[in-house]
Amino acid sequence: MAERTYPFNTWYAVAWDYEIAEGRLLPRRICNKPLVFYRKKDGTAVAMDDACWHRLAPLSKGKVVNDNVVCPYHGLVFEPGGRCVHMPSQETINPSACVRTYPLVDRHRLCWVWMGDPALADPNLIPDLHWNDDPEWAGDGTTLHLKANYLLAVDNLMDLTHETFVHQGSIGNDAVAEAPFRTTHGPGTATVTRWILNQEPPAFWGEQLGKPGPVDRWQIIHFTAPSTIALDVGVAPAGTGAPEGDRSQGVNGYITFAITPETETTTHYFWAANRNFDIDNQSRTTIWREGVRKIFAQDEAILESQQQAIEANPDKTFYDLNIDAGGAWARRKVAEMIEAEQATMRRAV
Amino acid sequence: MAERTYPFNTWYAVAWDYEIAEGRLLPRRICNKPLVFYRKKDGTAVAMDDACWHRLAPLSKGKVVNDNVVCPYHGLVFEPGGRCVHMPSQETINPSACVRTYPLVDRHRLCWVWMGDPALADPNLIPDLHWNDDPEWAGDGTTLHLKANYLLAVDNLMDLTHETFVHQGSIGNDAVAEAPFRTTHGPGTATVTRWILNQEPPAFWGEQLGKPGPVDRWQIIHFTAPSTIALDVGVAPAGTGAPEGDRSQGVNGYITFAITPETETTTHYFWAANRNFDIDNQSRTTIWREGVRKIFAQDEAILESQQQAIEANPDKTFYDLNIDAGGAWARRKVAEMIEAEQATMRRAV
Amino acid sequence: MAERTYPFNTWYAVAWDYEIAEGRLLPRRICNKPLVFYRKKDGTAVAMDDACWHRLAPLSKGKVVNDNVVCPYHGLVFEPGGRCVHMPSQETINPSACVRTYPLVDRHRLCWVWMGDPALADPNLIPDLHWNDDPEWAGDGTTLHLKANYLLAVDNLMDLTHETFVHQGSIGNDAVAEAPFRTTHGPGTATVTRWILNQEPPAFWGEQLGKPGPVDRWQIIHFTAPSTIALDVGVAPAGTGAPEGDRSQGVNGYITFAITPETETTTHYFWAANRNFDIDNQSRTTIWREGVRKIFAQDEAILESQQQAIEANPDKTFYDLNIDAGGAWARRKVAEMIEAEQATMRRAV
Repeated sequence: MAERTYPFNTWYAVAWDYEIAEGRLLPRRICNKPLVFYRKKDGTAVAMDDACWHRLAPLSKGKVVNDNVVCPYHGLVFEPGGRCVHMPSQETINPSACVRTYPLVDRHRLCWVWMGDPALADPNLIPDLHWNDDPEWAGDGTTLHLKANYLLAVDNLMDLTHETFVHQGSIGNDAVAEAPFRTTHGPGTATVTRWILNQEPPAFWGEQLGKPGPVDRWQIIHFTAPSTIALDVGVAPAGTGAPEGDRSQGVNGYITFAITPETETTTHYFWAANRNFDIDNQSRTTIWREGVRKIFAQDEAILESQQQAIEANPDKTFYDLNIDAGGAWARRKVAEMIEAEQATMRRAV
Repeated sequence: MAERTYPFNTWYAVAWDYEIAEGRLLPRRICNKPLVFYRKKDGTAVAMDDACWHRLAPLSKGKVVNDNVVCPYHGLVFEPGGRCVHMPSQETINPSACVRTYPLVDRHRLCWVWMGDPALADPNLIPDLHWNDDPEWAGDGTTLHLKANYLLAVDNLMDLTHETFVHQGSIGNDAVAEAPFRTTHGPGTATVTRWILNQEPPAFWGEQLGKPGPVDRWQIIHFTAPSTIALDVGVAPAGTGAPEGDRSQGVNGYITFAITPETETTTHYFWAANRNFDIDNQSRTTIWREGVRKIFAQDEAILESQQQAIEANPDKTFYDLNIDAGGAWARRKVAEMIEAEQATMRRAV
Repeated sequence: MAERTYPFNTWYAVAWDYEIAEGRLLPRRICNKPLVFYRKKDGTAVAMDDACWHRLAPLSKGKVVNDNVVCPYHGLVFEPGGRCVHMPSQETINPSACVRTYPLVDRHRLCWVWMGDPALADPNLIPDLHWNDDPEWAGDGTTLHLKANYLLAVDNLMDLTHETFVHQGSIGNDAVAEAPFRTTHGPGTATVTRWILNQEPPAFWGEQLGKPGPVDRWQIIHFTAPSTIALDVGVAPAGTGAPEGDRSQGVNGYITFAITPETETTTHYFWAANRNFDIDNQSRTTIWREGVRKIFAQDEAILESQQQAIEANPDKTFYDLNIDAGGAWARRKVAEMIEAEQATMRRAV
């Protein structure tokens, strides 16, 4: 993993919207860069390098005064655009004194940063995770701090066969690994579709449907490069449609994932579990969130041990199975983004 | 310590026989390789790389089913020879899918692995530590996990002069450092013989002999490269033989050591303290084991601080004293093994 | 920080005098070298490499016998000059067997070592910190173990503007950052002088003076390369002299600092807070020491976070403000010492 595995010219989720608050400085490392986040009085969120221009003291240990950041060490003041507007004991301010700031946008309950060329930072490129704040959907989520490269988390989600082995008893059973799936892809996207027909549902889904009998279960994985996933999952009574069960008679969830490299070997993993039924029932929201949290804790354990094994076996490489078709397309889309960036940088030289 | 300090074409003890059990996966790093061990229903012990062929997930977190290992992540199944016999969601198995396995043999209450060329793995090359399971001997031991290079432990055992300074009061006294010794060597072996004549025994040996008066004490160190030692120790009443005391009137122990590199700076150190008298007395077995354990804890402290000093003083080197004759032969035998291996590898290219 | 940031041909404080005691071995790393210190029966302090000539075992885990050091592992004995005077089990001693020793001098309640060429180790070069043991002054101090490069601590002390931001409420207020200052320098020295005229004193100084009304406050920073500082601070009633207040009507302290590199990123920071009034009042001595200790804990927090930020932002550098004039001279004097040493070493080749 000596090479950089993540692109810069893309939007990364850095925090839940409520984590970035007015007057409070939040430090967080994104793509191996220490950043600091805060919100101005008008509600706009700001991202800047967490190192003072002068002597690199972390601005996140300073304070916010009138929407500006004051360095904790010598009191230099930076306005939200990163320009230094006050230096101690001198009236003339070095015109080059500034810290780098980054485009930061609130969208779908998350804050998204653009680490690359700011001229390319089009908010329309933020992936669609509208299920997080659509009034027709209810749900909640949280953040997993994963001690593994972010692409291992992408691999994990692009192939749900692992549910049979890692999540046996909750959402996994033998039927998942046995069902066929279909992989498609487009510019910067990949999709894996799996229908598991006419099977007894696993425990979690049986409870959600609340009806006895076999179900048709679907898992449709919508990936947007480099690391956003909207997972369309649900079950419907078997035989209510053709060739697959009728969604309108079933129960449906959208699990959203925004997966952000912290370093090459650690990851901020933001997820939310949303549903479009019984949406006013806060108790069900809690049951979903806590159920999913337990499932992801199992993934966390396997992914962290996989990361450790990668480091302990530098002579070994990955091989692909048929089930890796989706993950392979996801990694190819990411590689294309990184290559495109590097080509641009070479032209700029 | 940038170069590898251990050979591969040799048998290393990896575990006590009872540690490797049927249906249980034991992870352990040997020669810087993560391995996993288990026992088949027929009692045969198996060693394989602890990383799945597919994505390197540690097999040791999976399970054993019908003598096969099932990967915890995607359920790939490997038979005891390392060949993959099941892949999820596909019927055709990639014929190259396998994990490396290693010859593993039970001998003298330990399990021994061969990390190098399996064609050379002759069980007759396993060093003789029969005192560990010979019915004429009784004893017990355990494992020390040492945070030091394995050759520092070999040095330590090849020169028992250190008993005077490190183990004063239990087995060490001034007489040890003052007594002359003799060093001999053969192919892959070295021996150091020391008789300490007509001296008051140190506390431990006085208690074992149970007779007052001066003793002739012996320490005969049998080294087999790279890191097995059988230490023949005992005392006999002085003057019962010539030129040395009569062993048959004394008490005798064989302390066995199988010292295995975990990494370049950590070591699995398996030892057992055996004796050929009062062998049905379990209480004496316990006294020996606990007495020796305390003595080795003193060695552990000095060896770990020596390892730290080596790392903290990269500009310094070792110098030899006369007492290092045995250790110097031991290191030369190890160096010859490594050179022979490297010559073979060059010819193979 | 890949290059060495500290010179060797200079005196570094390594311990308070009481820390180096007769018959006790004190290990401490200085300029990235593990050393061991002890005191002979005649009171002379000794410094030597903390690694036995033979196998690098740390001598600090051995013992002192008749002013000599006995290695804990094999009992080699080194006299205070570092020469080996006893080897186990042999009568002839290798004449080259020795450990390096270093000039070590007691001065001003501290022990000072010379890590470089011993021919240059003139005790007259030890910086003047006589306030630590002058009978006209009273005070006390202690040691801070700082996880930051030693020059960050020098920077911190050469510009007291940071008091306004880091120590607001105790010794800092806005007046400090606003007051002008003057920087001068000489061979191996730099001085920063700041008078803050006709201001309400900050809390600490108001209590010391014990008189109401505005004060003239002074901060005169006397730096001796590479890392000793005598800080002359005090307040006098405003208007008692011209152009500045009359010191004889005020209160005066000398805070002394001897700042020693442990490694490139850690520092031994010896300080004492002395005063020349009410000197028999032990309670006031304690109040000063504890007050200063709290202030330095604030510096410790900011300096350690600065060190972390430096390591986390390898692409960033330092920029200077006007307030850095003193620190810039200090760093230049240190750089000159290192360059002079390297020129000498080149000539010696």
